[in-house]
Amino acid sequence: MKENIVERKIMWGDLDSLGIVFYPRYYEWIDACGHLFFESISLNIGDLWRERKIIFGLVETSSRYFKPGRYHQEIRIITTIDALEKKTVLLKHIIRGSRNDELLVEGSEKRICLDVSDPENFQVIDIPPDIFSLLKKAKEG
Amino acid sequence: MKENIVERKIMWGDLDSLGIVFYPRYYEWIDACGHLFFESISLNIGDLWRERKIIFGLVETSSRYFKPGRYHQEIRIITTIDALEKKTVLLKHIIRGSRNDELLVEGSEKRICLDVSDPENFQVIDIPPDIFSLLKKAKEG
Amino acid sequence: MKENIVERKIMWGDLDSLGIVFYPRYYEWIDACGHLFFESISLNIGDLWRERKIIFGLVETSSRYFKPGRYHQEIRIITTIDALEKKTVLLKHIIRGSRNDELLVEGSEKRICLDVSDPENFQVIDIPPDIFSLLKKAKEG
Amino acid sequence: MKENIVERKIMWGDLDSLGIVFYPRYYEWIDACGHLFFESISLNIGDLWRERKIIFGLVETSSRYFKPGRYHQEIRIITTIDALEKKTVLLKHIIRGSRNDELLVEGSEKRICLDVSDPENFQVIDIPPDIFSLLKKAKEG
Repeated sequence: MKENIVERKIMWGDLDSLGIVFYPRYYEWIDACGHLFFESISLNIGDLWRERKIIFGLVETSSRYFKPGRYHQEIRIITTIDALEKKTVLLKHIIRGSRNDELLVEGSEKRICLDVSDPENFQVIDIPPDIFSLLKKAKEG
Repeated sequence: MKENIVERKIMWGDLDSLGIVFYPRYYEWIDACGHLFFESISLNIGDLWRERKIIFGLVETSSRYFKPGRYHQEIRIITTIDALEKKTVLLKHIIRGSRNDELLVEGSEKRICLDVSDPENFQVIDIPPDIFSLLKKAKEG
Repeated sequence: MKENIVERKIMWGDLDSLGIVFYPRYYEWIDACGHLFFESISLNIGDLWRERKIIFGLVETSSRYFKPGRYHQEIRIITTIDALEKKTVLLKHIIRGSRNDELLVEGSEKRICLDVSDPENFQVIDIPPDIFSLLKKAKEG
Repeated sequence: MKENIVERKIMWGDLDSLGIVFYPRYYEWIDACGHLFFESISLNIGDLWRERKIIFGLVETSSRYFKPGRYHQEIRIITTIDALEKKTVLLKHIIRGSRNDELLVEGSEKRICLDVSDPENFQVIDIPPDIFSLLKKAKEG
């Protein structure tokens, strides 16, 4: 199973008044790590969009919070494919403290394959075979 | 059942390159609407924190996306209590286009009652009776 | 002189660990208020972009901070045109507390007229006469 | 002169509908790089705040934009001290594309030394001698 790992540091601007990460920030990182995951298996989401008018749009996202992230803490975001279907792919993102490996957040993004040739009216489509096989390999490999 | 409704307009900075709302923005609004919901039932989260060292921290959040929000679209976020337990409250947030009432997003936040007297080590506690009764009334009333 | 005024409330997610507004939030609001200002003088930036491939890109932004904004404070953002030249327009944004009118922030955005027909290579152009005259009227009117 | 350099990659969520960085994101990065600069000269802003109730609050920020940042572009943010006075320090942040070294953004933050013992009423103070000497060394060294 392909894992993509991103390291980052929690910054001042990520925190709320309690000094812990404001949770929408986790979703920003998760979204970015989804893109980096795709890139790590040779799927550049930007190119896919520009050249083939295909995107993986969001159907559903969720996160569970186990421990608050704090100022200048180093974290590690581990992204994998949790499920793959004809039209959708489910990404799982685990966020851990780098120092002691403690679990902070478990997030998921369910993404659906869309044809966005008409920018005003996206169409759900089957994941094209070449992309499906890259995703399948990443899931199983 | 108490409903709190917030109107807002989708702005340029909320959009991604596809011209649709970048989903972490929805969570920012949902979080804000949770606070405004509490305030609408006379629970000021800021005061609660400063005066009684109690907060409602996040355990879990999730959203489903039905239709993309677009530039300068007027939206309405309707917040209600979906479930109430001894230590937790589940807020539901429905986001609709104001003009045609179409459903854009359905979000939820499960919040747990925490004593944050020690800022480095939050403790889960039962929701205090006075607060519980306000929440119960909002859920049933 | 045309003034556009936007009211908003400072939310939990806008604050940093000190309980005051994290300054990049002010720029998000200022940017949004720039768009709303244009809209208030019948210049819809979204339409301009889609229909005429013209945008007002940023050349320079700045802000001075006089007093921190705090949790659930009501604020008022007043936008005006401070200067208008052949290719550029300077927007001024004053942020005040609604209750006591105290000055919190003074911000500015210098925007330049761009032809974005080629999305990879924006061209500086003179502000077209119909738009220039709307801006001039807003500045002087 | 001490330079602190931070590398990052522009992500999908940083972009606006034109496919270029939404400018408040630059300020988020600049703020983070200010903190990392302080840390690089052994001034941990978090500790300073918790242990000595001192922060460096913002008086003024500004940025000039030379070229738009784009999807998955690698950038480099170079932070230095541009000016140092009894109560204030001026940080300069240069953002360049990593590949070809082209200038994207030039930003500055003027920060003032504050005693925040009373969280409702910050007091301007002289920069304490031990901190001043660290900053002076970073500026000149």
